[in-house]
Amino acid sequence: MIVEINPLGSMDLLSQLEVDKLKQSSTSELYRLYRNCSLAVLNVGSHTDSSAEIYDQFQDFDIDVIRRERGVKIKLINPPSHAFVDGELIVGIKELLFAVLRDILYTGVRLRDLSKIDLQDPSHVTHYVFDIMRNAGAIKTHTDPNMIVCWGGHSIREHEYQYTKDVGYQMGLRGLNVCTGCGPGAMKGPMKGATIGHLKQRVNSARYLGLTEPSIIAAEPPNPIVNELVILPDIEKRLEAFLRVAHGVVIFPGGAGTAEELLYLLGIMLHPANNKQCLPIVLTGPRESANYFEELDNFIRATLGDEAANMYTIIVDDPTKVAQHMKGYMTEVRNNRKQSGDAYHFNWSLKIDPAFQRPFIPNHQNVAELDLHFSHEKSVLAANLRRTFSAIVAGNVKEEGIQEIARHGPFQINGDKKLMLMIDKLLKAFVEQGRMKLPGTKYEPCYQIVQI
Amino acid sequence: MIVEINPLGSMDLLSQLEVDKLKQSSTSELYRLYRNCSLAVLNVGSHTDSSAEIYDQFQDFDIDVIRRERGVKIKLINPPSHAFVDGELIVGIKELLFAVLRDILYTGVRLRDLSKIDLQDPSHVTHYVFDIMRNAGAIKTHTDPNMIVCWGGHSIREHEYQYTKDVGYQMGLRGLNVCTGCGPGAMKGPMKGATIGHLKQRVNSARYLGLTEPSIIAAEPPNPIVNELVILPDIEKRLEAFLRVAHGVVIFPGGAGTAEELLYLLGIMLHPANNKQCLPIVLTGPRESANYFEELDNFIRATLGDEAANMYTIIVDDPTKVAQHMKGYMTEVRNNRKQSGDAYHFNWSLKIDPAFQRPFIPNHQNVAELDLHFSHEKSVLAANLRRTFSAIVAGNVKEEGIQEIARHGPFQINGDKKLMLMIDKLLKAFVEQGRMKLPGTKYEPCYQIVQI
Amino acid sequence: MIVEINPLGSMDLLSQLEVDKLKQSSTSELYRLYRNCSLAVLNVGSHTDSSAEIYDQFQDFDIDVIRRERGVKIKLINPPSHAFVDGELIVGIKELLFAVLRDILYTGVRLRDLSKIDLQDPSHVTHYVFDIMRNAGAIKTHTDPNMIVCWGGHSIREHEYQYTKDVGYQMGLRGLNVCTGCGPGAMKGPMKGATIGHLKQRVNSARYLGLTEPSIIAAEPPNPIVNELVILPDIEKRLEAFLRVAHGVVIFPGGAGTAEELLYLLGIMLHPANNKQCLPIVLTGPRESANYFEELDNFIRATLGDEAANMYTIIVDDPTKVAQHMKGYMTEVRNNRKQSGDAYHFNWSLKIDPAFQRPFIPNHQNVAELDLHFSHEKSVLAANLRRTFSAIVAGNVKEEGIQEIARHGPFQINGDKKLMLMIDKLLKAFVEQGRMKLPGTKYEPCYQIVQI
Amino acid sequence: MIVEINPLGSMDLLSQLEVDKLKQSSTSELYRLYRNCSLAVLNVGSHTDSSAEIYDQFQDFDIDVIRRERGVKIKLINPPSHAFVDGELIVGIKELLFAVLRDILYTGVRLRDLSKIDLQDPSHVTHYVFDIMRNAGAIKTHTDPNMIVCWGGHSIREHEYQYTKDVGYQMGLRGLNVCTGCGPGAMKGPMKGATIGHLKQRVNSARYLGLTEPSIIAAEPPNPIVNELVILPDIEKRLEAFLRVAHGVVIFPGGAGTAEELLYLLGIMLHPANNKQCLPIVLTGPRESANYFEELDNFIRATLGDEAANMYTIIVDDPTKVAQHMKGYMTEVRNNRKQSGDAYHFNWSLKIDPAFQRPFIPNHQNVAELDLHFSHEKSVLAANLRRTFSAIVAGNVKEEGIQEIARHGPFQINGDKKLMLMIDKLLKAFVEQGRMKLPGTKYEPCYQIVQI
Repeated sequence: MIVEINPLGSMDLLSQLEVDKLKQSSTSELYRLYRNCSLAVLNVGSHTDSSAEIYDQFQDFDIDVIRRERGVKIKLINPPSHAFVDGELIVGIKELLFAVLRDILYTGVRLRDLSKIDLQDPSHVTHYVFDIMRNAGAIKTHTDPNMIVCWGGHSIREHEYQYTKDVGYQMGLRGLNVCTGCGPGAMKGPMKGATIGHLKQRVNSARYLGLTEPSIIAAEPPNPIVNELVILPDIEKRLEAFLRVAHGVVIFPGGAGTAEELLYLLGIMLHPANNKQCLPIVLTGPRESANYFEELDNFIRATLGDEAANMYTIIVDDPTKVAQHMKGYMTEVRNNRKQSGDAYHFNWSLKIDPAFQRPFIPNHQNVAELDLHFSHEKSVLAANLRRTFSAIVAGNVKEEGIQEIARHGPFQINGDKKLMLMIDKLLKAFVEQGRMKLPGTKYEPCYQIVQI
Repeated sequence: MIVEINPLGSMDLLSQLEVDKLKQSSTSELYRLYRNCSLAVLNVGSHTDSSAEIYDQFQDFDIDVIRRERGVKIKLINPPSHAFVDGELIVGIKELLFAVLRDILYTGVRLRDLSKIDLQDPSHVTHYVFDIMRNAGAIKTHTDPNMIVCWGGHSIREHEYQYTKDVGYQMGLRGLNVCTGCGPGAMKGPMKGATIGHLKQRVNSARYLGLTEPSIIAAEPPNPIVNELVILPDIEKRLEAFLRVAHGVVIFPGGAGTAEELLYLLGIMLHPANNKQCLPIVLTGPRESANYFEELDNFIRATLGDEAANMYTIIVDDPTKVAQHMKGYMTEVRNNRKQSGDAYHFNWSLKIDPAFQRPFIPNHQNVAELDLHFSHEKSVLAANLRRTFSAIVAGNVKEEGIQEIARHGPFQINGDKKLMLMIDKLLKAFVEQGRMKLPGTKYEPCYQIVQI
Repeated sequence: MIVEINPLGSMDLLSQLEVDKLKQSSTSELYRLYRNCSLAVLNVGSHTDSSAEIYDQFQDFDIDVIRRERGVKIKLINPPSHAFVDGELIVGIKELLFAVLRDILYTGVRLRDLSKIDLQDPSHVTHYVFDIMRNAGAIKTHTDPNMIVCWGGHSIREHEYQYTKDVGYQMGLRGLNVCTGCGPGAMKGPMKGATIGHLKQRVNSARYLGLTEPSIIAAEPPNPIVNELVILPDIEKRLEAFLRVAHGVVIFPGGAGTAEELLYLLGIMLHPANNKQCLPIVLTGPRESANYFEELDNFIRATLGDEAANMYTIIVDDPTKVAQHMKGYMTEVRNNRKQSGDAYHFNWSLKIDPAFQRPFIPNHQNVAELDLHFSHEKSVLAANLRRTFSAIVAGNVKEEGIQEIARHGPFQINGDKKLMLMIDKLLKAFVEQGRMKLPGTKYEPCYQIVQI
Repeated sequence: MIVEINPLGSMDLLSQLEVDKLKQSSTSELYRLYRNCSLAVLNVGSHTDSSAEIYDQFQDFDIDVIRRERGVKIKLINPPSHAFVDGELIVGIKELLFAVLRDILYTGVRLRDLSKIDLQDPSHVTHYVFDIMRNAGAIKTHTDPNMIVCWGGHSIREHEYQYTKDVGYQMGLRGLNVCTGCGPGAMKGPMKGATIGHLKQRVNSARYLGLTEPSIIAAEPPNPIVNELVILPDIEKRLEAFLRVAHGVVIFPGGAGTAEELLYLLGIMLHPANNKQCLPIVLTGPRESANYFEELDNFIRATLGDEAANMYTIIVDDPTKVAQHMKGYMTEVRNNRKQSGDAYHFNWSLKIDPAFQRPFIPNHQNVAELDLHFSHEKSVLAANLRRTFSAIVAGNVKEEGIQEIARHGPFQINGDKKLMLMIDKLLKAFVEQGRMKLPGTKYEPCYQIVQI
């Protein structure tokens, strides 16, 4: 089955030089990246979070970029049939497909080959993130702050999922937009709920912003509700993008990834330079999840202290209150940006320490070398804990991490005994609650806590 | 609690004469109509289909129209709180509120007081229906046929409701619009499902058209998803409006109202003048509803004959097939209209016999006088059967019907013995399946089958 | 040559009843009206102000309304070729053509045949004018006051014409819209100038509103720049429409028509009920026209008194100042409307005495009976003077007036000797300055001043 | 006088890094360029074509870029007062001001500092031109070919100017867009005429595209009608941009610049690789200009041969025919692009030889070394002749050229005696006809023909 897709948006505006670069690379790493990300967005309604399984299932899938009179066309060979309705590609997926082309091309060809960005220089990294977001049209300037980043597990239980929808609905009724990391569970629920709220309020320009990265897009593919998709090159750029566009953060129950996100967020907010930042943070779930947040809260207080814990509000079983809390802060966020002269839709003034900005490669050596001791400053500890959970996410669902584990066995995590016990407890709870992997498979831990 | 609402749409364009007419009438029937319809659309999330109960609950509700520099404002006194989010009226409900004003004003003042329409003349009746629809902006001319009228019960079971959502979703994915009679159940499900389908296909101009009438709007209030609401003066105008805007009809399981609609539709389609009409009709439900349709089909075959039954297709448990069936016919509908020189969005050429057009007042005398015998021509029988079920609907959920029953006891239905048995059987099944009233109340039949 | 034109705007939404009414009337007065108005808007670039000449030249022109699937089509037989570019009707003219259909149909069929309007009742007359304007979509509610009515002669000299363009340009630069009576000269210049001003200010929704009447549209056809055309049934409704939509009035040099307009305006503004009205009035022309305004000013002071003259400001040779004067008043107009609770774009509160509202039929008897004496109240005198000039306009350029003159000779105007001398002087000046008819023809007066 | 201007369009989306680069450079060449180009667009209604005079007159003008919460603001110190209406900057000029910022920033900062473009590589040069045009949003993909490039003198006589307006009007009536080099005369007339044509045809998205370069923008500033302005870095990039976006070329009478443009165009079209190109070329002017074109035609035939001359059509005194000629070709242009698989709005397949693409620095040595002999191939001769006229334009109106002449006297042009005589004759005619400089100054030739 071969399908040719006409371009959408700005993708009909590629220079010959750019198309050539992309085409040349058809045997290259860039091409593989492009093909896999495209496959991921086509593979809608997938019921696995294993990238390998997906790539395996669609080995005969291929994609090609063809030059045409009005720009480029995309040629799909053997695409997943779920992306089509009566032979026509679903328009929302078509948009995502061109978002993939746009971002892979921009970061892979235009920025890499043609620019002199120095990714060791923090101001360059932030510029780089900005440039990708700008190129994606994801920075709007004419609206007031209203973007709520929602984090939470891709594998959650039905009542938790329903709860994320309820929160999304209440936020939609209040005109708030939703940004998530794409994928199922807590990343889909708030968007789905928000659509009905937006509809009732006749919000025409609602934004469902998905921020993803090549290494996770297959495991957590964007739902076609996502009407803006941006692919950042790695988890660190992606996390930076989340925080620079966020006007508020809601955290639902989740597993290692959610822990990583929370640690990243708190670690950065703890930086003295950020003490004037205005960013409401809410941890929330249905009544049944109360324990979950208690446990997480205990972990944060024990590791990063009360100062960190005071940065968030825990709201149990009250979607309306969550939405009101967020909505209530939006004026303050706006005034705060106005006073500091900062952009409304890209938080330039947020200080992100290089410890959080530098990519962490999740291999055995790097994990083993992680320095996990209470003696460190809170923000250093937060950075290292963030890396620890990042490695576990990689080992669970990211292609390279899975291969790494397959080759060398579980990551070895070690450090302060007390800290190890706490991490172990938290992770075990995640496992027991089925948060590490989608149901249907037995979870095989990709880590080992070394308790000396 | 007093709230003032700024006008939307064309409602800021009332002449002083028109506002005066409406205001003068504050003690009048017209005003009562206006107040009650407004209350109905504000009473969203209501869990009763009893108009009386609703009017009772909100006795202190009042509404006033105020002249302002840019047109009129609406003043609400003690409105239902569910219509508000943090003190702000939900925009979708605000739209519905102004749709009520528009239609009550147009039919009650402009058309009645200022016009010379002769409602005994069939061409005038059709012009009248057209004029109301046109004034409501509900006739679009620049789109191809795509309006699917969905009929079915307001009181259906969960799996049936889920099925109507699935059908709506599949229709939305195919760019089809949805028109229903407003209210819960089979009238809400297809719209809700379609929103997600439309969203994925990035359909910006999706239409969720609700056609209602003053006497039923409280029992079956429009969900705020409805983005076009038209209030026709009575059931006969409303049924005519349904058929003139329909490019296809989907019938889900339902009770007396659904039976009325089906009989109306088949009675008209049986008219020889309509044998070139192209209007796909599908009866559909989940697997569990297979029996329901079998029963209904038997009833139709026995009363109106196979000719009538051959006009519809029964599809069990296959939402995709229903949507494909409808979508597949749209080109034919378009060509048919083109050939006959008829409008795409108002089916002028459909012949509606006066027997179906003349209002039927559901009182005891009129019901008793209904001539229900097999000896009649099929279309006459269809007309009388339609009236029979119409009376039952009125007795069940329409304010005046309920009062009539309260005063004089159940309607007496009589005629051919065999026909009576068939009607009885069908109605009993509706009762048993809980289709007559929303669950939670014991159903007290408003009719008696007189079997001599 | 036969051309079929597809409908624009709402004209594809006619009911069968309405089309029938229009078609039935093809031998009727209504049809003649429709044909002639259509011919007038097609006859763009015409260089005569003689209706008769135009109708004569295009005797074989005909027009028909045809029903089609998406509404109606217009069929043109032997239309003037200037309306076409390479065989395609100019879109602006197409719009005007459908505006003609809309208004003739609305006033001729819907309002006349279908409504119960009582044109003897002042509130009904104003409602009637409002209804026509509303039906034409000419009442906008979401913009601040900015509509400047420009009056002045259709036959003016080149430097005067250039001056009207300059004023229009300066008004356009300030975001003001322009409303005129259509036709050439001072009615075209301000619009043409404003287009460039609007363009430089990127005003996308600029309005060039033309208000005309069937009896003058041929002599003063709308330029295709006019993007909103409304045909009022007679001069009195048209003058009322002018004043109800005006937020300011600019009067350029002109002849009898301009004098009629000024007298109408001042006569109404003199009414005590209007002393809180805020309506800036400017009389303006190039340096060479200074005398003209002096003369007019003298006439007004001598007839209606200084009170009337104080209502306007004379600005000579300063387009920027005219525009600044108008722009400067717009906030006050807005506040004034807000305080009085009046609509921004339809001045309901302006009191128009029946003397100005009642149609005046310009025949010999009516003219002879006009009571022109200083002894009257100013407003009565203004009303009668207005009628006098109205008759002269009719005798000059309106079809029926011309026929009247042809049959019975010039109108006989009589009254106070002193007043007669003044009128005579003013009219003679108009004749000498070539303001009565377009150049190229010798002007044959249609009136006689009876000086006893 | 200090004015702060809020950003328009995408200019509120600058990264901190980019603003810093621009601000750092406030004492630099880049800043000087930015200031001067900004001054040029503000200096509307200027009546001189001498850059020096303009810069002299506004020595105290300054401009600054300020960071603000929603992006950047522009601060103007002592701007020319003609750009303002009642203290407000004309919106069209505001747009141009931000176009200047965009292009100076893009070419000066983003492309120069951050990219690895190799301007010696032809494919890179074309990509570079494309990238600037794309960044300016000047490449539309969803419209059919309709962009007519109009070339001609900035100093032309009144009847010639009127003629360019008439041609523009006829093109506007046919929906054609206009692209010129900005400035007065033949570059303003077609745009001004087209506005009225577009207005009558209700063309909402009309394009008035101005392509300019820093060294000429002051002498030939964009009229505020220009609604898309792009500043290319030099004349060669600008000429390439003209041809890549053109679907047709109209050449009006002009001086050295027009000759340069014609020679560039013909030199490129003569390339064998371009023999399948479809690009209608018309030379046109009023009756009085017939001689002008005869002379030019003779020169082309004598230098580049009949083959070159056959590429254009001369139309005298017939604006409608010019517009019809262009309109008539648009379908062919479209088919041609479709067949060759080329973009509709950027002619990738046009072969531009490096001889035409490489920048020519107009100094005395380079001019003296120009090899002007008949012995060369036509395309080489065309390239050298183009450079000759380019140098004269620089000497006439470009800042650097004028300084060069001031320092070293007139350029010395030499070569084949016969060729020299022909050039001399043509240039003398330009001088006599007042085409070299705006009227009011005596023209002092910046060149000398060396006739050995």
